[in-house]
Formats: sequence, structure tokens, C-alpha cells
Amino acid sequence: MRVSRLMLVTLRDDPAEAEIPSHKLLLRAGYIRRIGSGIYAYLPLLWRVLQKVSAIVREELNATGALETLLPQLQPAELWQRSGRWAGYTAGEGIMFHLQDRQGRELGLGPTHEEVVTALAGDLLRSYRQLPVNLYQIQTKFRDEIRPRFGLMRGREFIMKDAYSFHADEACLKQTYAAMDQAYRRIFSRCGLRAVAVEADSGAIGGSASQEFMVTAEAGEDLILASGDGRYAANQERAVSLPVEATPLPGGIRAGGSGEELLTPGQRSIEELCAAHSFDASQLVKVLLLLARFENGTRQPLLVSLRGDQELNEVKLANAVSTRLGGEHGALLGIAPLSAELLRSEGLSLDLTALPLGFIGPDLADAVLDQAGLVVDLAASSAGVSGEAKAADGSPRLQRSFLRLVDPTAAALEAFVCGANRLDQHRVGVSWCGLNALPATEQVVDLRAAQPGDRCLHDPAQLLEASRGIEVGHIFQLGRKYSAALEATFTNEAGVDEPLWMGCYGIGVSRLAQAAVEQHHDGDGICWPTAIAPYEAIVVIANAADEAQRALAEQLYTDLQAAAIDVLLDDRSERAGVKFKDADLLGIPWRVVVGRGAASGLVELVQRAGGARQELAASALLSTLVPTIKRERTGLAAA
Amino acid sequence: MRVSRLMLVTLRDDPAEAEIPSHKLLLRAGYIRRIGSGIYAYLPLLWRVLQKVSAIVREELNATGALETLLPQLQPAELWQRSGRWAGYTAGEGIMFHLQDRQGRELGLGPTHEEVVTALAGDLLRSYRQLPVNLYQIQTKFRDEIRPRFGLMRGREFIMKDAYSFHADEACLKQTYAAMDQAYRRIFSRCGLRAVAVEADSGAIGGSASQEFMVTAEAGEDLILASGDGRYAANQERAVSLPVEATPLPGGIRAGGSGEELLTPGQRSIEELCAAHSFDASQLVKVLLLLARFENGTRQPLLVSLRGDQELNEVKLANAVSTRLGGEHGALLGIAPLSAELLRSEGLSLDLTALPLGFIGPDLADAVLDQAGLVVDLAASSAGVSGEAKAADGSPRLQRSFLRLVDPTAAALEAFVCGANRLDQHRVGVSWCGLNALPATEQVVDLRAAQPGDRCLHDPAQLLEASRGIEVGHIFQLGRKYSAALEATFTNEAGVDEPLWMGCYGIGVSRLAQAAVEQHHDGDGICWPTAIAPYEAIVVIANAADEAQRALAEQLYTDLQAAAIDVLLDDRSERAGVKFKDADLLGIPWRVVVGRGAASGLVELVQRAGGARQELAASALLSTLVPTIKRERTGLAAA
Repeated sequence: MRVSRLMLVTLRDDPAEAEIPSHKLLLRAGYIRRIGSGIYAYLPLLWRVLQKVSAIVREELNATGALETLLPQLQPAELWQRSGRWAGYTAGEGIMFHLQDRQGRELGLGPTHEEVVTALAGDLLRSYRQLPVNLYQIQTKFRDEIRPRFGLMRGREFIMKDAYSFHADEACLKQTYAAMDQAYRRIFSRCGLRAVAVEADSGAIGGSASQEFMVTAEAGEDLILASGDGRYAANQERAVSLPVEATPLPGGIRAGGSGEELLTPGQRSIEELCAAHSFDASQLVKVLLLLARFENGTRQPLLVSLRGDQELNEVKLANAVSTRLGGEHGALLGIAPLSAELLRSEGLSLDLTALPLGFIGPDLADAVLDQAGLVVDLAASSAGVSGEAKAADGSPRLQRSFLRLVDPTAAALEAFVCGANRLDQHRVGVSWCGLNALPATEQVVDLRAAQPGDRCLHDPAQLLEASRGIEVGHIFQLGRKYSAALEATFTNEAGVDEPLWMGCYGIGVSRLAQAAVEQHHDGDGICWPTAIAPYEAIVVIANAADEAQRALAEQLYTDLQAAAIDVLLDDRSERAGVKFKDADLLGIPWRVVVGRGAASGLVELVQRAGGARQELAASALLSTLVPTIKRERTGLAAA
Repeated sequence: MRVSRLMLVTLRDDPAEAEIPSHKLLLRAGYIRRIGSGIYAYLPLLWRVLQKVSAIVREELNATGALETLLPQLQPAELWQRSGRWAGYTAGEGIMFHLQDRQGRELGLGPTHEEVVTALAGDLLRSYRQLPVNLYQIQTKFRDEIRPRFGLMRGREFIMKDAYSFHADEACLKQTYAAMDQAYRRIFSRCGLRAVAVEADSGAIGGSASQEFMVTAEAGEDLILASGDGRYAANQERAVSLPVEATPLPGGIRAGGSGEELLTPGQRSIEELCAAHSFDASQLVKVLLLLARFENGTRQPLLVSLRGDQELNEVKLANAVSTRLGGEHGALLGIAPLSAELLRSEGLSLDLTALPLGFIGPDLADAVLDQAGLVVDLAASSAGVSGEAKAADGSPRLQRSFLRLVDPTAAALEAFVCGANRLDQHRVGVSWCGLNALPATEQVVDLRAAQPGDRCLHDPAQLLEASRGIEVGHIFQLGRKYSAALEATFTNEAGVDEPLWMGCYGIGVSRLAQAAVEQHHDGDGICWPTAIAPYEAIVVIANAADEAQRALAEQLYTDLQAAAIDVLLDDRSERAGVKFKDADLLGIPWRVVVGRGAASGLVELVQRAGGARQELAASALLSTLVPTIKRERTGLAAA
């Protein structure tokens, strides 16, 4: 392709809309253009990158026997209602764009396809003889992100490869899961990416186990915690670790029982309390007051106890709450600190000023939810509807007792400091036995965020180290969550119907392209891995007015095309410096400069990554460059 | 690929949801499954067909220098408001799915991309030096069809190739338009389709000229009118012709002036009138009373006069009304017969019972729009808003005078019969001069539907013949409609800014696949053209329990794969008859049967289309079959 016909428009300056290097470079080099918030046009250069990534994905998936298909983007709400995810994806997180058609039927724009593919499998797969089957598609997906940002990293419309496997038993699922793990490692390596596999939270997709693939990069949105010995790596959302040992309370403090009162005027935070009384944060139990919103209208107050030096992991909390109450109340729509604003927006009346916030202990009585006076559902009282009726229609209804959850770090303390449930007072030397509310086994659950420096479970001598990553893949063992909900069954060898076993496997194709830029760039622009570069080489005519240069460049361009190299010819009448800068910005792996040496049959060959350059005879170019490019096409393995 | 791993599920019976052969066959053979109204899953077999069609489209477009890109499916309403199409595509025809995001911003789901690509071009293309540029994409599009039907023919989610070209002048646009015409002919021919190019109405896309490509098939939704000499072909929506000569009124009737009254009790239709008084329909002028709805709230009564033997072409009428009033009132949202129901649904009050329907003449006075009594806008009077304010907010407002349009067939009559504007009375021997309302030049416009048997304009000796077609492509000369509206300008050679010249070019990729089935099937199933068949050959093991058959079939399967033939191996333990039936239903062009002859090294080769069969030595199979398939891959040219 001739650069003059490429509709190439490069920008000299960083666009104001971009924050991270890859986003800036993709805009500056003319790979993308913003059409709306989180919505981009993929220009011809990017499209070539996406096609190359897709081709690698297809080859590796086809090699595992997976079948390519294409499922609809418009999805009937009814399927999502059957799986129980409609409310969570629309009214809850609100991630799914949704609309009514001209008949008034609700449709969602697919952010993922478990429901559709499970319904399809239930229709097509009837016997164990047809199993296993692995269906995949490469398709534009939609997510109404709260904060679209970073270009293709967190867009509202993006390209995914998603695959869904169906099995007669769990062992077969695990086999395919392992095969996909291997295929994913080959895909990222072939794309020229350094990626790591980490344990992950399964989030809204669900299932028993999942693993993410992270392209390591400073601008990554995810925090990875990994042991130095390489035996453990997890997304912080999911990571577990041994907390540091707690510092026991000083001997002078009488421990056990309900503790002794301590005046702590205005000392609401852990820091203030520790500073005023020389406590160590690990000697404290901090109590968080939150509100969980459920699909059926239930609003559940939460009382979460953590050791004072630990931080809450919100993902773990959501999983714990959902597990305990999701069956009863439907999808968990969200958890937020219990505040006056939140109550107001929910139309709930509860006088929080009566609560001694900052001085709360784990034994805060349920009665505060009533004692505060009027627990009235304003929306309902104005509509004149009874509390019972409200539960069904999803309008807010406040539970009158706390769900109490205690992190093991707090539960393990024999004696601790905590709020006295009275303004400006704490208690010292409290034991759980001394409180009215003992943490029962089902209340104790891991809720703390693992931190860099924590000791590892598999070997306490290993400490967790932090790095940042961009999630480009995620594989899940779904089990029978969707097949049971959507009644997708098969007849097993014994002639009995049972729900299909399922796995699912995603790769963010457009995000991967940008992650590659984030991992491979320098001050001058992008340095594409050859395997996914839009073009592998660019022949630059230094002076387009020079007939000898033109003729030689055209010849090399033709020869490289004939050798099946993806090659550009920069035939523009720009200055040589402009063309070199553009070639660097675009990130074409190899640049062939046809300049003054052309008269004596010499050209310059420049490698984009690293900038190594050599002068060589034009006649020797192909024998040098073609084998190199063909080797580089195979990705990291050969690099 | 082994059939046992293909997730193949074929149906013995025609599914109730399907009406036309191609829809039935795609369902029965396991190419598609319905997920919702007009929404289908494309199963692996169909996906292979679509990939092959897409590859042919890409090759031919790339050869013209077009650049592949991918534009967003979610499109900001603002772009469509700037082009003036938002209201027509949402409130009007309602073809565009649309929604609000979590910030309350309106987005449409792209049925087409003129707005997005024009905005992009305005951003990227600044100088004549960059022109021409032709951008294309292959992408899922959305249309909220009123009546989704016929499977992929008229779905609500479907795959299109759409291309948009940009030029410095009209001559260059015409050059690219001609190049796309040629590329389209090659594409359809390479896909193995018999397609014809016809003049077309440009519809909601607009522009000065357009041409459709029709795959001829009995089940086609479009009526094609073509001359026997091949020099004229048009979609009936667009077709023009010479009407048959009118029969003059009998000599005994005094012609001219305002005519003589004729009592015609209860004779409301042309047929009744002709029967009762021995008129020929061509001696009558029939008058249609309709209402046009515009974006700004204007409701325009129409009085349309046609010669009694002619039928109204609704597309021509919409174009005529839109041309005359669209600039003033915004998008034409629709035209419908003026009825009590319509008035009620619009919230307009007008007493139609006072009108002598069935006895109306072209000179019906505007006063009837007031005389009927109360012309009240109910919606507005209840809201207490003035008429002026309503125009802006789009709520209905009735115009008090008719837009009068007369087809040339009616305008040309020197004397005719028409309604007397009084119940049970017509007039005989009326002339236009004798009526109050003379048809002015701007009122006379071609509104009649051309019919099979009509004489052709280019040669009255040629008669129009009818055939049916499936529209698979449509190319448009858009001119500067979108670039002017969206201010997409470039600097021309003289240094002056002017709007870009544009063309656009569509192919219905998924519809094309089904059209191929409609054109290529028989009583046993599909007969895919080899170039777009999901697999080119299938090796069938007649008896899977026979070791010799298995071994030979596996060998041939491996050899054909090595020869780069897309080949299936039917390794299922089904009866041979079942496998043969499935192979026929699927439509694989070549079947290789490894049966009893295997022991003596013989196989049977069966051609799907036509059913020709030959027995040959297995050792000779490749040298026979491979060159044949490679020749067939090139499409009709070689067939």
C-alpha cells in the first residue's frame, strides 16, 4: 500500500482527551478517532492490527477443535431474566445497554453471551455423544461503562473473542479449561506480548474458578500480587495472603470481657485513635456500616468488622453478601456506605444522626435501625402501598437487622479496642466472648484486601510483590450455573437428563491491540510486535523528486510484496525527516530508506525497536529482511 | 472437519416459522437458529459461508483501492440530528433502534453509516490531495423492521458491507461509482449468483442516482420490470414507462368545461362506476385523499389525482411530497390514507363524515378542511399551548389547504369523468380548464406505478416484463447531501473550501448467503455454489464399522486437506442413507462415497447440483476432483 493512498493523518501533539501513552499514540498515529464517549472509529491501520490478532486467535482456537459461530448482539430480556442477571446488568451495575423495540419488547445489547449460547446449546445438544463442544465468536460487545477511558482499554463498544464450552462432566470441563489456558498462552506469545496468568475473581460471570491473563504494563488498571518464587499470582480483587501478626495489647490492660471504657472525644478514625492513645492499628477492630441493594427491593444494612490495620476488599464483600442473600432477594445490585444521601436517594427514612458514627462496635444493636425513630419507606407511604406488596415490585424496603460479617483478622483477636456505641467513647480490652454478638462461623469470611509485602499462604517466607497489568483474557469454569437456570440439559450415558457443564473464555481483542502499544512503545512512537503490526516494513523514498530513488524504492516495494511481506511505500512528497518521524510514530517494525545511496545501489535498513541500523546493498535486502520478518511473525517464542 | 465434531443437527421437517425455501433449508440443515423475532444465531456452517462471501468482497474492494475500517455501531443522536435523519429513522419509519445511555444521552444502533463516516471524513480529509478515498467495513447492522420475516432476508440484525467514497468533484465520484458497479458484478459472479443491475429509488439514503443488484428468485420481495431487449431494468418502486393510451370518451358526451352531472348512487369505486355506465377506467380521474406527517408536527392533507386505470406508486409519492415540503417541515415521517382512525390517533379532530368520500373530484375545495366544523388540535387544547408553539415541539398541527398532485396520465386527459364533490354524483366530460383547480406545472409529477406490459420509454415497441428479485446490493451517488449537512469540507486546488462529493455502496452479506440458497436448491436441499460453500467436498464412510472403508476414507480426507480442499469427513455411526440425505441437505458440492468398493480401491463421486455420479479409482480422485473444485471456486465465470 502506498502511504499517499492510506488516508494517513498523524498529529504532532498529544490530544487532550488521552491520558496514557498507548491512547495518545493510537490517536496521534491515526489508528483511531473518537466518535462519542467510549466509542471509537477503527481506522484502516488499526483494522489491520485487529485482523492479525483475530487470525492468530482463530488459528489457535481452531487447533483446539473449537467452532466459530456468530451470536446476535441484540438479546431478548427474557433469556437474561431466566438466568437472573437482567436486573443486575440493567438496574444494578447498569452495564448493559438496553432498549425497547417497536413492539415494546425489551432487548439488551450483549456485553457477554452466556444466556444466548446456553439457550442455543439446550436446543442443539441433546446427547453426551455430541459433547464436548466449544463455540466461539469474534464480535463487537457493548458495556455502558460509568467512566469510559483510556481509549480502547475501557470503551463502551469493543471487540471480544468469547468462547463457550459444553461438557458431559466436570472432568471434561477441566480438560478444556486447561487446553484453553495453553491456547491463550500461545496466542499472547504469538502476538508478541508478555502476559501473566493470575487467579481472578469470577465477578458477574460466576462459576467456581477463573483465571485472568494480564499484559504487564505500568498503565494497567489492575493490581497484580505475585510471589517472588512465581508459584502464586492473583488479581488483588481475589488475592489471599497471611496478614502481618497483630501486636498484642499492652500487659497493663485487662483483657477479656466487654472491656473498659475509654474517653475518645472526636477520635473517629483509626489514625486519630492510635495517635491519641499509642495503640497499634492491629489492636483495633474497625466497624463499617454499609447498605446492600437487592433486585427484589430489599435494602440490607451490613456491619463489617475488620482488624484496624486491614483494608476492605469490596469484591470479596460483594461475593460474601451475594452468596448469603442472593438466593432470597435476587441479584445484588450494589453495596455502598450507609449515608444520609444514599438513604434519601433510595426514598428511605432513617435518622443517622442518632448513630454514634466513628464510635461503633461490632455489637451495635439491631434496635438502632428502629430506635432511630421512623423507619418509613417514603416512596411507598406516598403511594399508599403496603410493605409486603413492595417486595415484589422491587421498590426499596429496609431490613430491620444487620447482616454482620467479620474478617478472620478481627475474629482472631483475643482482646481488642473498639467503639463503645456511644459518642466519644471506645472500649479497651474487649473480647468477642464479652460482646453480645459472637461471630458465628458463617459470619467469619475473608474480606480483607491482600497487600504488597504480605506473606504468601503457600510459603510464608515469600512476600507478595505488586505489579500492574491490563486484563486481556479471562477463562472461567462456569459449572452448571447457566445450564441449570436455562434448563439446558443433555442425556448422559445412563440415559438420564442433567444440566450441561460449561466453561467460558474471553479475550479482549481491541483491548489487546492497545495493550500491545502500552507494552511496546518509546518516546518516538509505537514499536509493534511484527506479528500484529499493520505493516511489517516501510520503504521510504527520502527524496521523492529523485528519479533513481523512486525507481529503486518502487522495485524494492514490488519485490517485498512478491515475497508476501506486508509493506508500505512512503511515496509522499514530504521531507525525509517527516516521513521518518511518521514511520516511527506508526511503529512499522522495519524501515528501508532509499536515499542518496540509491545511485550506488545502497539502502539503509532500520529496526524500529531499538533503532539498530545498517547500510546494505539493495540487492541483498530481501535475503536479509524476508527471513527475519518471517521468523518474527511467530511472536515471542522466536524473538 | 469431522461431522461428528460439527455440532450438526438437521431437521427432517420444515419448521413452522419458515415460509420460503431458503429459510426452511437454512433452518433444517442447521445453518441458523432463531433467537428472537428477526434475530438469528449464525451456526458454524453458515459462519463459514459468510467468511467466504466476505473474503470475496474484501478481495474485490481492496483491488479497487478501497480501505477497510470499522465504524461504531452505537451512534450519537447528535450526528443524525445534524443530517436531519434522526426523526425520520426513529419517530418516523422507526427503523432505527435507539436508546439512552446511563447519562441520558440518546444513541442509535447503526442501520447505516453516512453520518458517522461523513463526520470522520470531515475530520481527516482536508485537501484535494488526499482524494479520492473509499472506506468500507463489513459489520452487523440493525433495523427494527415492522415485519421481520424470511430468516436472513429481512432480519433485524444482519451483516452488511458498506462503503463510502469521497471525492473532489462529481466526475471522480462517477468514476468510482462505475468502478464499484464493476466490482459488484464480479463479486456476485464470483459468489456463483445470477444477479441483475436495476435502476432504483434512493429512498432514505438519498442522492442523485442509484442502482440495485438483484439476485433473481421467485421468492424475491422486489418486483423487477425489464425490457426484453435488456436495455432497461428497474425496481418497480422506481420504474417508468409509457402508460397504455386512454380511451376517449364516446362522441355523444359533450367534453370540456365543468362537465355534466351524473347520478351515481353508491358507486364509490372505479369498478362500480365503469360497470354501471360502461366507462373505460382510462376515461376517469380518481382522486386519493391522504395525510402526510412531518417531523415538525405539520400534518399535510394531500389530494392526488391519477387516471382511473393507473395505480399509485407510494415511493414516488413520498419522494414528491418530501421534495416539495421537506425543507419547510423537516423529515417526512409517513403518508397514509386520511381516515377517522388516523385522525384520532394523531389527536386531530376533523369530521370526515361531511366529506363525500368516493365522489371526490380534483377540485375539492380547501374549505372542507374548515367547513367540516372544528379543526381542533385536541392534544394542544388540553395542554393549553398555542398553535405556533406546537410547530416547534412536533405535536400534530393540521394544514388547512391541500397539497394537490396530479399524475401526467390524468393531467393529459382532455375530457374525463370525475366525482362531483357531492354524495352519489359524478361529472362527465370535465376538462381541467373547466375546474377551479388547474394542475400547475409544479403539481404534475409522475406518481403512477409502472406495470408489466407497459411500453418502454426508450423504445415503445419493447414491453416491460416482470420478474422477482432479492436485493443484495445497492450503490448510490450521494452528491453533497451529507457533507453539506455535516460541514465536511476540503480545500480544492484553487484553495477554496467546498463540501466533499460522496458515494455509498452496500452489499447485504448475510442476505446474499440466503439469496444463494434461494437461487440454488432442489427438493433434497441446498446446492451451494462451490465458491461460497461451507465445505467443498464431503467424504462419506458408508459403513463406519467397516475397517477398510474407514481407513480409505481417512486417507482421502487427509489427502484432500493436504490439497487445501475444504473437506468434511462424515465419520458418524449413522446409516449410509442418513448421511447421504444430510450431505444433500447441507448442499456440499461434491460427495465422495467410500462404500463396498473400498476393498477394491473404488469410490463414488457425486456432484450435488444435478446429481451426476461416477465410480472411479480412489487413487484417481484427487487428480479429478481438486482441479475441478479449484476451477469452480472462481464462480460463474468458470462454471
